[in-house]
Amino acid sequence: MPTKGAALRVEEVGAVASAQHLLLCDPRIEDWAEAAAQTHLDARQKAHVAEALRTHRRAIRLPSALAETLARQSAHTQMVWEAARPDSDLAAFLPELKKLLALKQEEADALRTEEQTRYDALLDDFEPGAKAEKIDQVFCKLRSGLVGLRRRILDDTRVPVAFDGDFPPEAQLALARRVGGIFGYDWDAGRLDQAAHPSSSGTGGDVRITTRIDAADPQECLFSTLHEVGHAVYEQTLDPERRLLPADVYASMGVHESQSRLFENQLGRSRAFCAWLYPVLTETFGATGARSADELFEIVNTVRPGFIRTDADEIHYNLHIMMRFDLERELIAGALDVGDLPDAWNARFLADFGLEVPDAKSGCMQDVHWSAGLFGYFPTYALGNIYAGELHAALRRDLPDLDQQLSAGELGAVLDWLKQRIHLPGRVKPGADLIAEACGQMPSEGPLLTYLEQKYLTRG
Amino acid sequence: MPTKGAALRVEEVGAVASAQHLLLCDPRIEDWAEAAAQTHLDARQKAHVAEALRTHRRAIRLPSALAETLARQSAHTQMVWEAARPDSDLAAFLPELKKLLALKQEEADALRTEEQTRYDALLDDFEPGAKAEKIDQVFCKLRSGLVGLRRRILDDTRVPVAFDGDFPPEAQLALARRVGGIFGYDWDAGRLDQAAHPSSSGTGGDVRITTRIDAADPQECLFSTLHEVGHAVYEQTLDPERRLLPADVYASMGVHESQSRLFENQLGRSRAFCAWLYPVLTETFGATGARSADELFEIVNTVRPGFIRTDADEIHYNLHIMMRFDLERELIAGALDVGDLPDAWNARFLADFGLEVPDAKSGCMQDVHWSAGLFGYFPTYALGNIYAGELHAALRRDLPDLDQQLSAGELGAVLDWLKQRIHLPGRVKPGADLIAEACGQMPSEGPLLTYLEQKYLTRG
Repeated sequence: MPTKGAALRVEEVGAVASAQHLLLCDPRIEDWAEAAAQTHLDARQKAHVAEALRTHRRAIRLPSALAETLARQSAHTQMVWEAARPDSDLAAFLPELKKLLALKQEEADALRTEEQTRYDALLDDFEPGAKAEKIDQVFCKLRSGLVGLRRRILDDTRVPVAFDGDFPPEAQLALARRVGGIFGYDWDAGRLDQAAHPSSSGTGGDVRITTRIDAADPQECLFSTLHEVGHAVYEQTLDPERRLLPADVYASMGVHESQSRLFENQLGRSRAFCAWLYPVLTETFGATGARSADELFEIVNTVRPGFIRTDADEIHYNLHIMMRFDLERELIAGALDVGDLPDAWNARFLADFGLEVPDAKSGCMQDVHWSAGLFGYFPTYALGNIYAGELHAALRRDLPDLDQQLSAGELGAVLDWLKQRIHLPGRVKPGADLIAEACGQMPSEGPLLTYLEQKYLTRG
Repeated sequence: MPTKGAALRVEEVGAVASAQHLLLCDPRIEDWAEAAAQTHLDARQKAHVAEALRTHRRAIRLPSALAETLARQSAHTQMVWEAARPDSDLAAFLPELKKLLALKQEEADALRTEEQTRYDALLDDFEPGAKAEKIDQVFCKLRSGLVGLRRRILDDTRVPVAFDGDFPPEAQLALARRVGGIFGYDWDAGRLDQAAHPSSSGTGGDVRITTRIDAADPQECLFSTLHEVGHAVYEQTLDPERRLLPADVYASMGVHESQSRLFENQLGRSRAFCAWLYPVLTETFGATGARSADELFEIVNTVRPGFIRTDADEIHYNLHIMMRFDLERELIAGALDVGDLPDAWNARFLADFGLEVPDAKSGCMQDVHWSAGLFGYFPTYALGNIYAGELHAALRRDLPDLDQQLSAGELGAVLDWLKQRIHLPGRVKPGADLIAEACGQMPSEGPLLTYLEQKYLTRG
């Protein structure tokens, strides 16, 4: 966006939020739901009515002026963040974040029901029905498992192999397109472009994705694309004919993230898929630095602590998330002041990662979420990993020849399994319940930890 | 857009139209206007109130269901057109156009005031306050002038010079950016990208433009860009701080088009600017086929009849417009059936251009406008040319050294003149009145014809 566009964009975002709030608050929604309840509804129709009522009742708890102010302050804070981040300019950023946090607290107080904490009320936007306390219990166990696992992995003092070759951007994009197709991306219902940040947007018949390219490392483009393809296939599968009904949307952000992480990690970075990928990579780029499928598997699963969440490996990623989850709960509860955030961040990072944060852009200013008002979003990333762990275990149980399929570049059975159990149901129940029904047990950290142990402790 | 995205887009466009209509119909707008009228308002504030009331009263005449149906049918017809055009598939296109036309007639009947014809009611969307009958009178005189002029130009049997060289796309884009900057485009308030169709969109601090490149002919990219820069500079100049007030928008589509055509033709294709452009082109591309500034001027002002409006030269362009204006008035009045449109088009084209239309994609299916429901839009293109003729004559009067400035690549005085008289006033009066005030006389075809005669009959 051009720099001078920022001011007007804030106004526009506010105007759209206000118009949207007006529509969601329409008192006739209650009447329509009541009338519908007098007729015979099947389970799916009931889910549509319930979801419509949920968003309506949530909207009417929020004063219209606050909805608009929040949208404007979020847009504004995000722009300030964008300008301030390159210089780690906390002095410019924190005062705006402080204003935004106060509005988010006000929003949470307006939204929360008797059973919800302030934070739960915000979390509900991204993971309907979830409770922070319950998530915290699972995260604690995940954290202790990951910390132990990381120690054992980092004790391995062998010099890791790395990519070394010539990876022309055009060839990387062509490979990403090919792999995207194998993983079920429908090219008639989307397109792939390059952008500063990988992303997926849209739904039904128009789900566009972006990726980015590192000319020295083909992982960036390939696995970023696979991640976005995971999100996109979910949205593409939701039937375009029904897409405007309230429950015909993704179940929750955690379930959404489970699809992208499953594609990217459990499937895309598997030893079996590396067996398919190795000859293709060599054919595409010539010498890559990987001299075998096993070496390729080692390279794409290198574990190394770092400051940036989006660059993190499977072991460190959830540690990044959990510290953000803890810090944002304190911020929302009023127990941590925005002014103290940088110090709190750096202290926690040193404790969790053993590294001194050099500057705010590698620390508390690295993510867009808080500046955009997305408090309550972070835990859904780790929930997504936990759900992906469950789905992966269930897939291996239901498809005993999964490795054979992956090493042949055949994803049809996996996609069909996901489509029936995850994609088509839409938003009929809380994300955790949907995963439980698909996998046969309430989701916990167990399968994810088991998968990580097997993958990282049996290598070489 | 991905092909499978079409269906959902129709729904979305309908939903947005419906939400917009709801806001525009808010009965409190009358109350607010009445309350404002009780206070002291300056002329500009009065213009804001008047424009708000105008759009409100227009909206309430339109039934909400019709507003939504129209938006959906327009979006749908446009998609059908896009798919059908490459094969000139009239059988697929015309039935949808027929449905859309019926809705437009219904809309016009709902909207028209006592002083307006059906067609006037639609025209009012693009050229507020204009009347088709008055436009028709001016067009008749323009038409007879153009037809005589064209005969005399085409009588010249010299073989025209043409571009002949190597024009790398990157260098064309760089040149377009440089020339765009000279013509006042603010690169901090916009960006230039390549696309299938040249366009300008947005307002205030975010006005983005697209262009397209013909590797064999640098005119396409350069003058398409200049055209869009003309639109964009108008939008960029409207003060971003005030951009959400009702009258702080462009005066009319005709005035908008006058800016793009003035930049593209009267200024960009002038002999004086060719004197600046010639050495720059040679420096950029080496040999271009033009051996002097005069030859460059000849090349960029070649007159040749053709089927496609957007490819037309300055002489033929308005003939294209006037036949569309006549045909669409007959369609809206119900005097011409959609089924008879192709024959009517082809007969008129033969009469006006002396050419047999080979297929519908070179004929009545070439433009997006009718398929998008934009009946009443076409005349604003020719009005834009007429306004540009007036502005150009006034600029030459007020800036006696204009040619010297153009040949030095200096547009500052021109831009300042336009800014004060055209850009900053916004929508305070009908487009024709704004031009009249800027130029000292009510706009007529005279100055445009005089300019064309001087340019095309004194060459060589």
